[in-house]
Amino acid sequence: MHHSGGTIVEPNDLPVKSRHLDMLLAHILYSDKPFMGSVTSPENARDSIEMVRILFGSEEISKNPALLSLISINSPRQFDGGMLGALREYAQANQATLITPFILAGMMSPVTIAGALAQQNAEVLAGIIYAQAVNPGAPVIYGSFMTTVDMQSGSLVFGSPESQIALLAGASLARKYNLPFRSGGMFASSKLTDAQAAYESVMTMLPAIFGNVQFVLHAAGWLENGMTTGYEKFLLDCDFLGAMITLAKGLEVSQDSLAMNAIQEVAPGEHFLETEHTMDHFRTAFYRTQLMDYEDFEQWEAQGGLDATQRASQRVDYLLSIYQQPELDLAIKEGLEDFVLKRKQELETKVFS
Amino acid sequence: MHHSGGTIVEPNDLPVKSRHLDMLLAHILYSDKPFMGSVTSPENARDSIEMVRILFGSEEISKNPALLSLISINSPRQFDGGMLGALREYAQANQATLITPFILAGMMSPVTIAGALAQQNAEVLAGIIYAQAVNPGAPVIYGSFMTTVDMQSGSLVFGSPESQIALLAGASLARKYNLPFRSGGMFASSKLTDAQAAYESVMTMLPAIFGNVQFVLHAAGWLENGMTTGYEKFLLDCDFLGAMITLAKGLEVSQDSLAMNAIQEVAPGEHFLETEHTMDHFRTAFYRTQLMDYEDFEQWEAQGGLDATQRASQRVDYLLSIYQQPELDLAIKEGLEDFVLKRKQELETKVFS
Repeated sequence: MHHSGGTIVEPNDLPVKSRHLDMLLAHILYSDKPFMGSVTSPENARDSIEMVRILFGSEEISKNPALLSLISINSPRQFDGGMLGALREYAQANQATLITPFILAGMMSPVTIAGALAQQNAEVLAGIIYAQAVNPGAPVIYGSFMTTVDMQSGSLVFGSPESQIALLAGASLARKYNLPFRSGGMFASSKLTDAQAAYESVMTMLPAIFGNVQFVLHAAGWLENGMTTGYEKFLLDCDFLGAMITLAKGLEVSQDSLAMNAIQEVAPGEHFLETEHTMDHFRTAFYRTQLMDYEDFEQWEAQGGLDATQRASQRVDYLLSIYQQPELDLAIKEGLEDFVLKRKQELETKVFS
Repeated sequence: MHHSGGTIVEPNDLPVKSRHLDMLLAHILYSDKPFMGSVTSPENARDSIEMVRILFGSEEISKNPALLSLISINSPRQFDGGMLGALREYAQANQATLITPFILAGMMSPVTIAGALAQQNAEVLAGIIYAQAVNPGAPVIYGSFMTTVDMQSGSLVFGSPESQIALLAGASLARKYNLPFRSGGMFASSKLTDAQAAYESVMTMLPAIFGNVQFVLHAAGWLENGMTTGYEKFLLDCDFLGAMITLAKGLEVSQDSLAMNAIQEVAPGEHFLETEHTMDHFRTAFYRTQLMDYEDFEQWEAQGGLDATQRASQRVDYLLSIYQQPELDLAIKEGLEDFVLKRKQELETKVFS
């Protein structure tokens, strides 16, 4: 995981008008990964930019964008005013944006994937051109969030094969424009961390690897079409992402990896365990999962016969017990807290139309 | 599912020496899909060939191979006599073979994937050349069954990222020789039809689709490194395979699928549900799963809150209740039963050395 994303969970217990401040402060205080700014209005975008100025300095963030924020397009063919205003603010401040049509094919686009892609492409390019008109060279990512609807019930379907055809074709379009591409994720429609959730998640994530997707949002934890998240799902997805990094590295071909000496050394039908080549490589040869079980049946049963979700649940407790809050300069922390307090007071007295 | 495979389950309750006859007869009587012949000895291969001669006729099977049989290589660099004899029998009778090194990388090959591939390639080509020496033009498939071993415990690992790099590179090698390729499957190390089983299975099957694999064995039902099978796993895998067929079809680009009229017709922010284009396409636009759940949470909960495995279990009962044995010409059926009876009597009196 290289990025904390934006809305990890929606804090429905906090007032809507100042919630973005609490969410950003939580990103900064509890994690040391990059994060997203608020996009619901230009004011919220300005607050987000101000907070990363306090955190990193004005000069620094104008050179090296600190925020990558998700501008959703209200497909078909519509930006809402708040999002468009936020895009303007971020582009002006040279902060990066992820411009992404939200398309449930069949509902917000034609039901045929080629038509959905044509619409997506026009929408993304419109957003990107707007950002470039505001500030030529403003950093942008070509985004896609496209899945299908069950046309008989109207329900969302994650992990559908058509959505993955769209992913691969969308990645090709972004490459054509020489733009980085966002798609993929470990999406699931399932309500539980069961076999369905895993089938759906891998079905969405693995094509993102094969399609050379540059930015994957929602890469772990999704359940129930994003309506909820699961700690166990999060950890199992993270474990799988480790395997994806190994897969993405591809095949290493060298004189050493071809291992001709080892092949010559081992007699037909014998094993390679004791060759020097194996000794040299066995520690790092293969990705090691932390959550999958490879015991034999008897051992597995003796250890309680746990399924993957139960094992992940045990690890959740362990990881929470060893969590350490990252360090933050005290003056910066106070500066951020003062800013949040001041803005909350201003927002409380503001009358929303 | 286009093929019934070979060993669906190993009938350990039947005598080893005549078990192949019962297995073949079961394939013929209870399914109408193609199947594999026995490979454990040249005699068993001859029995298999004789049974498809009774079933389809000598003339027919010499022109159109009826059997595709799995010749495993005892890696590294060794064919056992029984398998090699079976390969000879099948090649002579112009029946197809799937020549497949059985490689657990790190144990039966170098621990580096490039080395494992080099060895696999030499082994497969040796088998193919042998078949061609016996009968030039004998139909063969370049087979790969390669996975990794957990080098710390010695356990098998299915769905490892390294095994999938090997799959894609193996597919390239087979293409280089202009040979059809066998790999992939819905393999799992998990003992249960849980999230682990699904992660592992999709991780093995989806790269087979992207690698354009021509023949996939063990495409449904595997659990516990193939030591057992699960009805629920089988059905969930089959459901996923339907999605794979849709994925493999790729993107259809045509004037109709680009849907420019529909895009023009729907105002910004409105929906496509009522367009003529949607009406024309919605019934067939998307793959429809039979086992995944897309209800909203409340409906799902009201229907018992079942996980994917529980839903599959219900469908197992339904499918077994509607099973109908395929029809078979009575004279052929009696011919096969007579042959099996005669061979069992011969085998019972035979002394094995």
